[in-house]
Amino acid sequence: MKHLKVIEALKEEKLLQEIQVCGWIRSFRNGRFVALSDGSCLHTLQCVIEDDVLLDEFTISRLNIAASIQVMGVLKESEGSGQRVELLVKKLTIEGEASPEEVKKTILSPKKHSLELLREQAHLRVRTNTFGSIMRVRSKLSYAIHHYFQQKNFQYVHTPIITSSDAEGAGETFKVTHLDFEKLPIDDMGKVDIKKDFFGKPTNLTVSGQLEGETYAMGLGDIYTFGPTFRAENSNTSRHLAEFWMVEPEMAFCDLDKNMDIAEDFIKYVINYVLEHCADDLEFLEKRLLSEDKQKPKEERNELLLREKLELVSKNHFKRVSYTEAIEILKSSKPNKKKKFKYPVDKWGVDLHSEHERYLVEKHFKCPVILFNYPASIKAFYMRLNNDGETVRAMDILFPGIGEIVGGSQREERLEVLKEKMDILKISQEELYWYLDTRRFGTCIHSGFGLGFERLVLFVTGMTNVRDVIPYPRTPMNAEF
Amino acid sequence: MKHLKVIEALKEEKLLQEIQVCGWIRSFRNGRFVALSDGSCLHTLQCVIEDDVLLDEFTISRLNIAASIQVMGVLKESEGSGQRVELLVKKLTIEGEASPEEVKKTILSPKKHSLELLREQAHLRVRTNTFGSIMRVRSKLSYAIHHYFQQKNFQYVHTPIITSSDAEGAGETFKVTHLDFEKLPIDDMGKVDIKKDFFGKPTNLTVSGQLEGETYAMGLGDIYTFGPTFRAENSNTSRHLAEFWMVEPEMAFCDLDKNMDIAEDFIKYVINYVLEHCADDLEFLEKRLLSEDKQKPKEERNELLLREKLELVSKNHFKRVSYTEAIEILKSSKPNKKKKFKYPVDKWGVDLHSEHERYLVEKHFKCPVILFNYPASIKAFYMRLNNDGETVRAMDILFPGIGEIVGGSQREERLEVLKEKMDILKISQEELYWYLDTRRFGTCIHSGFGLGFERLVLFVTGMTNVRDVIPYPRTPMNAEF
Repeated sequence: MKHLKVIEALKEEKLLQEIQVCGWIRSFRNGRFVALSDGSCLHTLQCVIEDDVLLDEFTISRLNIAASIQVMGVLKESEGSGQRVELLVKKLTIEGEASPEEVKKTILSPKKHSLELLREQAHLRVRTNTFGSIMRVRSKLSYAIHHYFQQKNFQYVHTPIITSSDAEGAGETFKVTHLDFEKLPIDDMGKVDIKKDFFGKPTNLTVSGQLEGETYAMGLGDIYTFGPTFRAENSNTSRHLAEFWMVEPEMAFCDLDKNMDIAEDFIKYVINYVLEHCADDLEFLEKRLLSEDKQKPKEERNELLLREKLELVSKNHFKRVSYTEAIEILKSSKPNKKKKFKYPVDKWGVDLHSEHERYLVEKHFKCPVILFNYPASIKAFYMRLNNDGETVRAMDILFPGIGEIVGGSQREERLEVLKEKMDILKISQEELYWYLDTRRFGTCIHSGFGLGFERLVLFVTGMTNVRDVIPYPRTPMNAEF
Repeated sequence: MKHLKVIEALKEEKLLQEIQVCGWIRSFRNGRFVALSDGSCLHTLQCVIEDDVLLDEFTISRLNIAASIQVMGVLKESEGSGQRVELLVKKLTIEGEASPEEVKKTILSPKKHSLELLREQAHLRVRTNTFGSIMRVRSKLSYAIHHYFQQKNFQYVHTPIITSSDAEGAGETFKVTHLDFEKLPIDDMGKVDIKKDFFGKPTNLTVSGQLEGETYAMGLGDIYTFGPTFRAENSNTSRHLAEFWMVEPEMAFCDLDKNMDIAEDFIKYVINYVLEHCADDLEFLEKRLLSEDKQKPKEERNELLLREKLELVSKNHFKRVSYTEAIEILKSSKPNKKKKFKYPVDKWGVDLHSEHERYLVEKHFKCPVILFNYPASIKAFYMRLNNDGETVRAMDILFPGIGEIVGGSQREERLEVLKEKMDILKISQEELYWYLDTRRFGTCIHSGFGLGFERLVLFVTGMTNVRDVIPYPRTPMNAEF
């Protein structure tokens, strides 16, 4: 007998055949209709127990929500509305029970639970419709990322997670150690003897694979990374995680313009991919968002439906604006004049905050914006200095509701300029000799960017807290499961 | 003008068109022939400088190995042998120089370097043919893994890297901390106050995503992970890394037999994928292996060519043998009788060592072997106890030259049996309440396995040291770059 997943059974062309399906009970109505989910898609398969003598009382009494069952039956055209096919049950076995009293204490019980409660039971929340959909979309988005780069002949590179270089300065790092805190080895100077640690020196979790990625781009041409990165920032916001996944492409012989082209094309591709391959899940998430919006005051509601928003992004050009232009727009903007910004924009050179980015994207341009050519003073050491000597070839992509989703730049390819910059910022040339070597042996114009994967999942699913788009979020004081 | 990668130029059908290519010089012969590599494939594009007045002396003098150049020219049928097309140079610009004196000190110099030396210059080794090929194969293997599972409707799950549970007991873990070693906070008892750490409790790097993966399989049905895992074992062998990538599928409603079917099918698929998509790189690695073999005594040489070995694996059934049968075979084997094994096989229940696994695979069966139904006492707590009460539904896949490449099992789905086992092994039920919950609410027969990605890359590339199949290996006393 054919064993089918629910997603396959629902699409099966050949009816009236006997099949087997396994899954968990989502509901049991009228002593006859079991809605069966196996996680392969959003929808359940309706299993109909027509024959009253088929199941004994004991079995019937255990057909509870969350129990797992194995069903054999005949696939047939559905008599009810809402589904094309249903399964006429011939045999049903309960594989794992679920006590209604116990289920009632969990988020598996059939009522609306708050996202906070779902977070506390993160090991069960994937069994809800919302999180099933989010996680399927997350999976498909991941695959779309690989698919995009592989078809363009980029090589996937696994840059190291444990690293001894913290030169990027992207933020606070976590230390990695094998020392026993209670018995730290002490050296002659009375300091902790880190030479006795596993790697013989201080190591931390990577904040970015970029520098190592660059060394690989100098050999393989176009590469990308997709892996976990870490920040030990004590920020308890809905946008920050201590552990998150990042995509970092790096392209040899590629300038800032081409970098922006690729980043835009890439984002549009992956969004179109899930629009095509996750239609059911996105429809569900769209309805979810709509019903959430109804609880909100009118001015806080989304102007567009979820898929309308995704299509808008995937079908329109991202507006490219230089930092200098952006400052002019912000300086003369209403909220700036009326002193509504927390950080007033008074002069060229100030860093842009979330409020400014959102104004540009949501109020002024009303579309994704790529800001480029930032002041050198507010950007990282490795970015290509422009001929004006004041700005660097950096670019950030800003999304409505999300803010920065991509940060990238053309890299400083000139050895002497790079060394000078490192000296000013007191970054050790000795420690980063290997990075400088890429500029010593056939250096070339090259560029790359980083995309925060959870921010992309947030945008695509319409969720508002990054804790809800990763299976087990890590945040200050929280490393459960 | 069309900008083409070398891989595209070599395949381009439309000749006599002007194109642009960028890359690094691999060789410059007779003042006329530049071999250009851009890492997109193994092969170089031959660029021919026919017109003697095209380039000035100064430019010619800088056409050194490892320098990067931009070439415009006309793609034409090659007059020489060894390539289909070549580029007749119309314009050539040097983008990044490479001083021959400096290059001579590195592995970029055109002679044979030892793998040890290449490891020391890991930031440059990807620019060699060998490592370019290895890393392209690694990239394609990664993609094949995603492709296999996605087309079978498995969901990709990112299980956490930082974790507070060390219950799996798969090995020594690295601690993750944000405390300052020189200023550790001390509690009332005089102990290090770990509550003051970032997560408020001890955390470490994951050794496996399996337990979290199981919670997701209980919601999404079939899932897989593919991410970094860590072991703080002080073992300096050619088979162990402190940081390595692992693939861990987990399937609901799947028993051990089906688990073995999927694992075998999966491995064959990804091997066939690279045989098809990395033909040039595998041919190169095959030749490399052959010339290495010639340096060895006859009895140590490989019996098969690299691709013959891969095809043998991908085209033949893996032999399935129970642990009990394997012990009988080993007990009466020649090396055991002649006391040639370091660990004699004298009775049922002993753990198998590498020498035994290699005997079974390489001498006895001469094909990949799946060993199953191991004694419970030598396997992990979560494995499904057989009805004999003595063996568990574990399985290991053993490969020639590699040993264990996959370890998996059917999981113990019975709550009471699992709790009993945890009590015996003193694993805290309280700490793993979330894992036990998967058995409380609709538990089901389920299985999964883990594949050590670097071992697979070793097998496919014919390399013999795991340090040579990952960009920046992490081993005891080594976290460079």
